[in-house]
Amino acid sequence: MKHEEIRFEFGGALAETVGDAHGLTDREWADLGKETAEIVGRLNAARAKTPYRDLPHNKKISQCDEVLASARAKKGKFDDLVVLGIGGSALGLTALATALCPPYWNHLPREKRAGRPRLWVMDNVDPAEFAAALDLVDPERTLFNVISKSGETAETMSQFLVALDLLRDCVGKEWKKHLVVTTDAKTGILRPFVQAEGLESFAVPDGVGGRFSVLAPVGLFGAAMIGIDVEALLAGASAMDSRASAAAFDVNPPAQGAAVQIGLYRKGKVMSVLMPYSAALRDVADWFRQLWAESLGKTLADGTAVGPTPIKALGATDQHSQVQLYRDGPNDKVFTILAVEDFGIELPIPDPPAGVAGLEYLVGRSMAELFHAEERATVWALAHLAQRPTVRLVLERITPHAVGQLLYLLEVQTSIAGEMLGASTYNQPGVEAGKEATRALMGAEGPIKNPAAKGLPADAANYAALRKRIECK
Amino acid sequence: MKHEEIRFEFGGALAETVGDAHGLTDREWADLGKETAEIVGRLNAARAKTPYRDLPHNKKISQCDEVLASARAKKGKFDDLVVLGIGGSALGLTALATALCPPYWNHLPREKRAGRPRLWVMDNVDPAEFAAALDLVDPERTLFNVISKSGETAETMSQFLVALDLLRDCVGKEWKKHLVVTTDAKTGILRPFVQAEGLESFAVPDGVGGRFSVLAPVGLFGAAMIGIDVEALLAGASAMDSRASAAAFDVNPPAQGAAVQIGLYRKGKVMSVLMPYSAALRDVADWFRQLWAESLGKTLADGTAVGPTPIKALGATDQHSQVQLYRDGPNDKVFTILAVEDFGIELPIPDPPAGVAGLEYLVGRSMAELFHAEERATVWALAHLAQRPTVRLVLERITPHAVGQLLYLLEVQTSIAGEMLGASTYNQPGVEAGKEATRALMGAEGPIKNPAAKGLPADAANYAALRKRIECK
Repeated sequence: MKHEEIRFEFGGALAETVGDAHGLTDREWADLGKETAEIVGRLNAARAKTPYRDLPHNKKISQCDEVLASARAKKGKFDDLVVLGIGGSALGLTALATALCPPYWNHLPREKRAGRPRLWVMDNVDPAEFAAALDLVDPERTLFNVISKSGETAETMSQFLVALDLLRDCVGKEWKKHLVVTTDAKTGILRPFVQAEGLESFAVPDGVGGRFSVLAPVGLFGAAMIGIDVEALLAGASAMDSRASAAAFDVNPPAQGAAVQIGLYRKGKVMSVLMPYSAALRDVADWFRQLWAESLGKTLADGTAVGPTPIKALGATDQHSQVQLYRDGPNDKVFTILAVEDFGIELPIPDPPAGVAGLEYLVGRSMAELFHAEERATVWALAHLAQRPTVRLVLERITPHAVGQLLYLLEVQTSIAGEMLGASTYNQPGVEAGKEATRALMGAEGPIKNPAAKGLPADAANYAALRKRIECK
Repeated sequence: MKHEEIRFEFGGALAETVGDAHGLTDREWADLGKETAEIVGRLNAARAKTPYRDLPHNKKISQCDEVLASARAKKGKFDDLVVLGIGGSALGLTALATALCPPYWNHLPREKRAGRPRLWVMDNVDPAEFAAALDLVDPERTLFNVISKSGETAETMSQFLVALDLLRDCVGKEWKKHLVVTTDAKTGILRPFVQAEGLESFAVPDGVGGRFSVLAPVGLFGAAMIGIDVEALLAGASAMDSRASAAAFDVNPPAQGAAVQIGLYRKGKVMSVLMPYSAALRDVADWFRQLWAESLGKTLADGTAVGPTPIKALGATDQHSQVQLYRDGPNDKVFTILAVEDFGIELPIPDPPAGVAGLEYLVGRSMAELFHAEERATVWALAHLAQRPTVRLVLERITPHAVGQLLYLLEVQTSIAGEMLGASTYNQPGVEAGKEATRALMGAEGPIKNPAAKGLPADAANYAALRKRIECK
């Protein structure tokens, strides 16, 4: 089976199209090539520091065989898979499911799902929504997968406690068969529970942060359960890894992607819009939003705050919502249009009925042709008419292999971009204080767990004091 | 029945909290009060120019009685309502449905929907998605509502032609009973067809643009079909209209909202994040995104490009995706947290099982309490720890009356903000050229329909020439 490579088209982001102020000149492009090539060399030499890079190749850390065996054994036994996770424990799997399952998967009757469950990724603590979701499923035919590396994620753990209670009520002693735990291999709150109860579990690999974990069991287990070919996904990522490791800039897509994004960020494009023309790829944009924001949105050691703001959009829908601003508003964004060449269906547009005039241009055409025309027209209007820098990232078809390439490309692009900005790509110090504040407001007592959390008031050493500080505001 | 007013809390956006560089000083607040009061006076005097303002009061233009009569007559007769529309013809109804129907409405069994149909708002031309949606419904039990003021919207009309063909195939001569057309009362492509065939139709009121049309039949008909109390919705909007017309700044929420948004835009907050802590309100953020972007994203007569970029976020989910950037990245955003005091359900968190330590702070608490704590902790961390200007917009409960207030507040806030920026709030000249380019790429022939579309090359007077220009790029 021939696997098409995915490709970038950068013409709409170059100075020759959008002008020197808004696009990259030949000189800048060459300099960015040198800068990123040097970074690629460094990243290649220090691969041990970025274990996510080995997920496509190393079955010991991807746990691909165990994931597949588990999913195979469970086939036909569950009508619903409920995943309890938030952030990196939710976004990757959601992106995979939307991209690679048939549309409206959760609405398909059981026989069209071929023994695979519906999928509910619960990534919030809205009580009305969560209660309603639990009402939809039959616990006796439901598998829960709780995902938290530390087991300390308040949102996920509150969901877990509600789900565990439901299971014990409804299926009694059999509850263990309805639970898979994805957590740290050794540490954390959940591991002792897994061991004491003998629960099925997967490991979040050491050194792989949530936003880089889609190709670990965090994403793979749910994907395998709903019938996605995770081996092809990993093979696609592996193919991209070869290209991502190339020293030569002109054959290294992640280096090129980082170069155009950060090159234009330095020229004042403070927002980066990812706009798929494909309903299936819309949640890839949402997954990317976390990857880009949490990795690059940082305050540097010298106090400078950096980070482009990622924005998810959707073609053609947002032509009727955001494109007015994109084209006529401030020229402060770089656009990445995610294009698909072959949707696998054309859907011919029937002739207009008598009495409906003015639609002659649709006659004999298909909805796929219209979708493509909308995409090309928008790229042309943004880049050529309005000097808004615009990149195309093109998939021939949406297959597991192509999606594996795409996700891995964007991950390595993020690693390179982090180096270009001088950011600490793999941490997220800015969210710790909020977690402590939540615990305080929930009535926690005693000394603060993480008193060094960035920005916490020095005079609030215990939760009661912190609570008082927050409540008097 | 007592209807609670919704309210703003601006403390987190004032200089006393976030400093002079990032918040509004007393002096600035007072000046913005004068500026907006003057605008409110002008808008009040020129209400005839903004007919959307009369939708809450004027049943002739809202067509509320006709909408209700039609929905009543159709109750129990349809399992599915498929709405064909894009942009303003889709976003308002989607926001209403997500806010005011029970969660997972389309997954509820028929008996729990009390004779009301599922709702599918089809706002794109992805052929795989659209074909899959049509596969889910039984045409004999499906009502289609096609919405396009001009009837020239390529996306909607291609959907309409596919749906019409399906209906004629499947229900034969009865097809007219399965179609409601919402379009201009007199002009446009669809009106002659409606008249010739004697179809049921509603009017898009004169002078009401798509993004301001949620309280016209564009939004109301679908809302009534799925059982939303549209009279309470309009009453809420009407209540807000009284407050929105007040000359005194300190009792006029839309004036205050516009003041803080545009006041901070002028201080460099180029992005405006709307972050509901409520799954039900998440699509209000999506609706607002069009309202704000398309109304304010403009190039002024002097060539200045203006317009804050609206960003939709979701609490608590995005604490694990965007808050790292929001807090530690560039201080270039204003945050509006949409808060709900009472979710109508608490959902108690059960005690942790033996062997799970470290979750004591959740004991005896509810998921609703956790959700509230997350919201307050985030506001505190953004505003008080990181000097990011943050507004709270608080609903006591999510009711039709409250949502009516909310939507109308945001509409008038947009009208006031447009005046503050000097923007042409109600047009969208930046999208016309793209529409012509789409027609050209679809093979249209003859002279260009709208040759004055902004930015179209002067030497491309017909579609063939325009096509050639685009394809050689």
